[in-house]
Amino acid sequence: MRDEYRVQLAVVGELLSAMAEHVGQAMREASRGLLSADRAAADGVLADHAEVGALRSQVEERTYEVLALQAPVASDLRVVLTAQHVAADMERMGNLARHVARAALRRYPENAVVPELTEVFAQMSDIAVRMADKMHTVVAERDATRAAELDRDDDELDALHRRMFAIMFAPDWTHGAEAAVDAALLGRYYERYADHAVNAAAQVIYLVTGEVAAP
Amino acid sequence: MRDEYRVQLAVVGELLSAMAEHVGQAMREASRGLLSADRAAADGVLADHAEVGALRSQVEERTYEVLALQAPVASDLRVVLTAQHVAADMERMGNLARHVARAALRRYPENAVVPELTEVFAQMSDIAVRMADKMHTVVAERDATRAAELDRDDDELDALHRRMFAIMFAPDWTHGAEAAVDAALLGRYYERYADHAVNAAAQVIYLVTGEVAAP
Repeated sequence: MRDEYRVQLAVVGELLSAMAEHVGQAMREASRGLLSADRAAADGVLADHAEVGALRSQVEERTYEVLALQAPVASDLRVVLTAQHVAADMERMGNLARHVARAALRRYPENAVVPELTEVFAQMSDIAVRMADKMHTVVAERDATRAAELDRDDDELDALHRRMFAIMFAPDWTHGAEAAVDAALLGRYYERYADHAVNAAAQVIYLVTGEVAAP
Repeated sequence: MRDEYRVQLAVVGELLSAMAEHVGQAMREASRGLLSADRAAADGVLADHAEVGALRSQVEERTYEVLALQAPVASDLRVVLTAQHVAADMERMGNLARHVARAALRRYPENAVVPELTEVFAQMSDIAVRMADKMHTVVAERDATRAAELDRDDDELDALHRRMFAIMFAPDWTHGAEAAVDAALLGRYYERYADHAVNAAAQVIYLVTGEVAAP
């Protein structure tokens, strides 16, 4: 019974690790699509998107089986329920990467990001992808030292997000409402993506250390 | 054991019903704050917001106890896990209502919505609040007939959302980038709020009918 439980849990862990890798790669490609008006990269994100939902469904099924057949209690039960929450966060990250890819395609062959904002978005996407990579490490290796790093990355991304608004709302902004709206929505996708990465990692770390990460 | 399980589940049901009512009321007040530059209404949403998180935590604790002590299987297990998912959706709805309230306060005593968009936002907020009320009915009474209505409401809201963009991107838009960005983000909050209402209701209906609602 215990052996079976460990095997099942290892499978769930592998699924979560695959999800983390997938949503990181999706944001990497979506950002390439966005910043280089790279249609193939953005199309690839849409083509591969169903995989995230399929992985989440597998996590749901596997954890359901564990609960139904093994009836875990105490910390084992927490692990299983947390896996479900983490999978939900990562599915959402996949959706947000898809939003970025779609925004890139909507303006193709034009750039969806105006020149004044390219640098800010390049940095935001670097940080978002880096955060997904760290989240992957946390999920795959239960490396709790990464939690603090993710919080710092998130602060850095928030600062860039504020800088983006400052550029758009400055008197010398000449691109009008549509480019500003594109940027505001894109900024929100990156911000939410990062929030979910922090959240997913914090939940894994809670399992490892039993402590809630400082907000 | 079974009696105890039924009692626990009834408590969870009441918590979910309270959450549904709370997040509906929050969006009603936030929208009043937004559309009438009503500071007291918007402040009230922020003041009451902690309640949503507290209710969600109670759902998590109660369902955890049920799983740990009763080890439900089959459809009983599905009910408990679904309760957790529904609570997550509704917590997010509460957060989105708070975003609307904050947007109202950020521009106070000015109106955060420009006159050309007031009618569109008034209709979007009516639909969003109506959807929350229907979701509440679904949760409290397991009334599966509401599912189709929620889908139609959601389509109506999406149409308004598109009309909002058409107004902002028309050549006669004179309000500049900042008002357009405010509206785009607000539009997204209403859209996401509605999505979560549809999702929460669909999950409850799945429990009742065993069928996935048509997308």
